[in-house]
Amino acid sequence: MTLSLTETPASGPSAAPRLTDAEVREHLVQLLGAKVLTGDEARARYSHDEAEWAPYAVPAAVVRAVRTEDVATTVRFCADYGIPVVARGAGTGLSGGANAMAGCVVVALDAMDRILEIDPVERFAVVEPGVVNDRLRAASAEYGLWYPPDPASAPWSTIGGNVATNAGGVCCLKYGVTGDYVLGLEVVTGTGEIVRLGRRTAKGVAGYDLTSLMVGSEGTLGIVTQVTVRLRPARAPERTVVGFFSSTVAAGDAVVAVARAGIVPSALELLDRHCLEAVNDWKNLGLETDAAVILLARVDDAGAEGDALAEQVQACFDSAGSTFSAVSGDQQEADALFAARRLAYPAVERLGPVLTEDVCVPVVKVPEMLGRIDEIGRRYDVLIANIAHAGDGNLHPLIITKPGDDAARDRAQLAFAEIIAAALTVGGTVTGEHGVGLLKRDGLVAEISPAVADLHVAIRDALDPHRILNPGKVIDR
Amino acid sequence: MTLSLTETPASGPSAAPRLTDAEVREHLVQLLGAKVLTGDEARARYSHDEAEWAPYAVPAAVVRAVRTEDVATTVRFCADYGIPVVARGAGTGLSGGANAMAGCVVVALDAMDRILEIDPVERFAVVEPGVVNDRLRAASAEYGLWYPPDPASAPWSTIGGNVATNAGGVCCLKYGVTGDYVLGLEVVTGTGEIVRLGRRTAKGVAGYDLTSLMVGSEGTLGIVTQVTVRLRPARAPERTVVGFFSSTVAAGDAVVAVARAGIVPSALELLDRHCLEAVNDWKNLGLETDAAVILLARVDDAGAEGDALAEQVQACFDSAGSTFSAVSGDQQEADALFAARRLAYPAVERLGPVLTEDVCVPVVKVPEMLGRIDEIGRRYDVLIANIAHAGDGNLHPLIITKPGDDAARDRAQLAFAEIIAAALTVGGTVTGEHGVGLLKRDGLVAEISPAVADLHVAIRDALDPHRILNPGKVIDR
Repeated sequence: MTLSLTETPASGPSAAPRLTDAEVREHLVQLLGAKVLTGDEARARYSHDEAEWAPYAVPAAVVRAVRTEDVATTVRFCADYGIPVVARGAGTGLSGGANAMAGCVVVALDAMDRILEIDPVERFAVVEPGVVNDRLRAASAEYGLWYPPDPASAPWSTIGGNVATNAGGVCCLKYGVTGDYVLGLEVVTGTGEIVRLGRRTAKGVAGYDLTSLMVGSEGTLGIVTQVTVRLRPARAPERTVVGFFSSTVAAGDAVVAVARAGIVPSALELLDRHCLEAVNDWKNLGLETDAAVILLARVDDAGAEGDALAEQVQACFDSAGSTFSAVSGDQQEADALFAARRLAYPAVERLGPVLTEDVCVPVVKVPEMLGRIDEIGRRYDVLIANIAHAGDGNLHPLIITKPGDDAARDRAQLAFAEIIAAALTVGGTVTGEHGVGLLKRDGLVAEISPAVADLHVAIRDALDPHRILNPGKVIDR
Repeated sequence: MTLSLTETPASGPSAAPRLTDAEVREHLVQLLGAKVLTGDEARARYSHDEAEWAPYAVPAAVVRAVRTEDVATTVRFCADYGIPVVARGAGTGLSGGANAMAGCVVVALDAMDRILEIDPVERFAVVEPGVVNDRLRAASAEYGLWYPPDPASAPWSTIGGNVATNAGGVCCLKYGVTGDYVLGLEVVTGTGEIVRLGRRTAKGVAGYDLTSLMVGSEGTLGIVTQVTVRLRPARAPERTVVGFFSSTVAAGDAVVAVARAGIVPSALELLDRHCLEAVNDWKNLGLETDAAVILLARVDDAGAEGDALAEQVQACFDSAGSTFSAVSGDQQEADALFAARRLAYPAVERLGPVLTEDVCVPVVKVPEMLGRIDEIGRRYDVLIANIAHAGDGNLHPLIITKPGDDAARDRAQLAFAEIIAAALTVGGTVTGEHGVGLLKRDGLVAEISPAVADLHVAIRDALDPHRILNPGKVIDR
């Protein structure tokens, strides 16, 4: 599907002529040579992220930046001619935030992938945006340090993309999201200037927190070209607690029981049978698929306190009616279950187009929300598999349709909209960690007030005066 | 001292006449009745914070808001007439951020002091801005929860003021600063609209992080009228580790040794003999004042792991040449030492005007920076006492002068400027937790690039189109 995005920049300098795609490529090649990808296949490859059914078009050109100046040169050129610029990491996003629009230039940052510095005493790392999340974690581990944010896409997604979407992951429950680790940024602004935001010190309140403003802004306020992240000391080994449940609602009750007990596990994930079976079929992990739903908790508190906490988590599972529970001493089995959690999304994708939800609700509302999702799936006759960062209330119902079944696709989109509305009704948010992109623009408007939408536009216009930075994403005005 | 601040709003609606102070009071009393304080004494009382030598003027009027609508009414009136509005919590700030300017209206938020909600399962509290920091901590404790940010002013300062300055404290080293706990805000904008920012869920990435943008913006982007803060489960009891050192530089070496060992204590504070003696003279705590400098560490990890860590901290102290060290089993003695830390600032203030520094440097630079501070004090012949959140690299040299000694005051101000410059030289920031206010405006400009200053102005103008919100603070353009 190649829908043309209808965005046109509001204000290119009036003197500049409107360039054809071919002219855009010509100019850029003159400026940046072989860093500009002009072929049909390459441009198609960089035209969209992994959001299902989000519109995109093939860009006029792709600039594969190797240094910050390449990004600045591209933005300045695009500002002169009023050409949209779409920044892109690994393209693993799930909201269409990196989707290209007609006539735009995609700035691909995947080749800017150097780890520039790891400081083991101040505990920070300085990286280029194209560094893959898992690679930063591995490099940090060599210094006895730990970079916590761990989206399921960690083996493929980049730190720049993680920053642009404020990505979450499994360990957020105890350790927070990407934004909690970003100390400073180098950013190319909407006018093509290179600026440094934030700091390297442990604390600092000099001026507005522009670093946090950039985090999660999905390339609409600036393009991130360098990231300074805080690191933590490596932590104690985790224990795994597994619980089997006969329904998503029962599993949800167990999640509430853990919260009521005042326990903060280092992970509390939900995975239903559809996901387990899909992973089994694909990877042949030999997982038990008797349970309708599995909860996977981890506890990383050290020593006897950690042992006691793990037992308390298990007791919470049992109090909510688990059909089986165990504190796993078997690291291999525990790792297989967490691998299944990580692989659930690509495994389910093999079954057909998947519309991925990302609502986040108050923890006490998790059982009710899971019940509503079941009901919505039945009512619209669509298969909904569930994975969830359940301890955070961050649910990822995966609406799966058969390839080519247009009627099912229409029903899936109605179910998607209804899940968003239900999340807002129980006091939740339309996106917990995937970002607004294209798929949640209506949801965002439903969530925030018109006055807050005005604040978004005022800030966007202040930082992107030429309206060229990923126009039409996040807020469609 | 009553210097007139020369700020005039850049753009009041041109049709509106310029009101005299008496007319401002008249109009406001018509709108808000007895909530408007008009008397000379009351206006003088609300004219400045605790920053020494920062200019201020007596405001035209003080509005003591009791509900959000009072703030909105005031801002709308001020927008109509182009009158500056200065928001104020308890007035314990140390940078002049709450200082009034000629013709302005001070909006005092100390009477909006209700704790509206504490949710023990979702672990958040919703409070009005006038709630005193320690009161929120005590109220949270009743639910087995903990609000960590603990500036030394915690018994007096308000959550609203803490949010406006992104206040830090003793536990930041392990638990972060105020901004790390702010989930959502109600804010009155520069046009007098009431908006809700952020969320109540554990995670959420719907739209720009306007909450973090407001935190630390010192009343220049909006006035905070309600705060939703994240709470943590209550933690295990802390052990205290004390170390005596013969010089600030030796104590700094011990701080670096702790960081190199990869230990994150729950506190790592520095306190020199000048401070200990001042507190002893005032409160008669009977503290040992033999040591030139004391380090106070705390470790709150549970069980045997915590015991082991406390011993490691002590070993770090000893490796850096401590003249005495102990892991304190005596909770009373430990509490007295931390009380001395908290009382150091008011105790030292009794000796004469105190110019309080707030630089934050990389931890490895702490010994060098403490050495430079000693040297600067000697060179300018001013007494500099030291307290520090040493583990964060956040130093508070206190430059003390005799009352009425104008020559000393001039030297103190030169020393102040030189300490700021030295901090920037070693890669630090001009303010770790007190904010820019008036005293660090030049420092901010020295720290950030002209392009980043432009971004500040662009955002400020976008959110405060009438230029009435605390004009002249943070950035003087």
